[in-house]
Amino acid sequence: MKSYRSELRFNTKHRREFINITPQVEQCVRESGINDGLVLCNAMHITASVFINDNEPGLHQDLEVWLEKLAPEKPHSQYRHNTAENNADAHLKRSIMGREVVVAVTDGRLDFGPWEQIFYGEFDGMREKRVLVKIIGE
Amino acid sequence: MKSYRSELRFNTKHRREFINITPQVEQCVRESGINDGLVLCNAMHITASVFINDNEPGLHQDLEVWLEKLAPEKPHSQYRHNTAENNADAHLKRSIMGREVVVAVTDGRLDFGPWEQIFYGEFDGMREKRVLVKIIGE
Amino acid sequence: MKSYRSELRFNTKHRREFINITPQVEQCVRESGINDGLVLCNAMHITASVFINDNEPGLHQDLEVWLEKLAPEKPHSQYRHNTAENNADAHLKRSIMGREVVVAVTDGRLDFGPWEQIFYGEFDGMREKRVLVKIIGE
Repeated sequence: MKSYRSELRFNTKHRREFINITPQVEQCVRESGINDGLVLCNAMHITASVFINDNEPGLHQDLEVWLEKLAPEKPHSQYRHNTAENNADAHLKRSIMGREVVVAVTDGRLDFGPWEQIFYGEFDGMREKRVLVKIIGE
Repeated sequence: MKSYRSELRFNTKHRREFINITPQVEQCVRESGINDGLVLCNAMHITASVFINDNEPGLHQDLEVWLEKLAPEKPHSQYRHNTAENNADAHLKRSIMGREVVVAVTDGRLDFGPWEQIFYGEFDGMREKRVLVKIIGE
Repeated sequence: MKSYRSELRFNTKHRREFINITPQVEQCVRESGINDGLVLCNAMHITASVFINDNEPGLHQDLEVWLEKLAPEKPHSQYRHNTAENNADAHLKRSIMGREVVVAVTDGRLDFGPWEQIFYGEFDGMREKRVLVKIIGE
């Protein structure tokens, strides 16, 4: 069994952003030399997500509006977590979108359907954050 | 390390359906000859889910009503994604229900609790869709 | 490839509780003797979750309030699942919080960001429930 580990780093300009990280994860798969196995790709922070969806800007605007409806940022005072911080909503948004994805590697490539793309979902940005890419296989 | 890959295919009669795929995934585990490892089972499309819950029709009706409340299909015009398509709600519903499950394989079987069953959740059906089953182990 | 399997057991005092299980999962990693691989940690019951978030009591209260808003327990009669049982809301809450986490193992340890902690989320407690810990690697 081979294994590979890498970290991706982010420091977004805005509090909330969606970033397509598929090219970086594909690069990790190539570097790993693993032809057949599983990739785990997870946010290392609890106010961010890694998820798979469509690379379509209209959908990303819909996600922003929808997540704000389900878990609004403001007023900050509505959350008990917000005593020293103001990011309780980011913890909730990440709970909906998920921490991680696991993707098959087949023939040395991400084994994807036609429109699958991996996104980093930042919900409390403007600071350094990381994503872990771990690959095991042969 | 052994690995196994298969695709399940669906073309539902309705826009939204829940289909119990546990027997097909169990068949994949048998075909793989893997006794000990992990199964990844993921929707290959971004308007569908694979999830684990109860095989109980009342709950499936509750899920349909609940998902329509959290991410209503109509009016289609409420979503910016719906310029060429009308399935933005399906992308959101799938975000709640998740893309994938990872299940342990022990003694050549899905290592499940008493009521766990794997479902394909279709949110934009009436077209050909696929689920990937990838197994690694020994 | 090595593999390891263990079950954690819970019988909570209240219907809903969040329990930090990071020390138990770390103990499993040590017992496994696996230095490099993946841990799957999943609820074996369909009214409970395993998730990763912050070990902060205010946030746990926020999660309780928020999940009750998105998927209220009462009135029990609002759900078709509640003919013989009264736990439909627990199935929905678990759908938001997720069944499982997959965590990398690197150098014999859970490969975590600074604040990641694993929680068992009970949504229909006061009975015996289990969590599966399955580790594969080398």
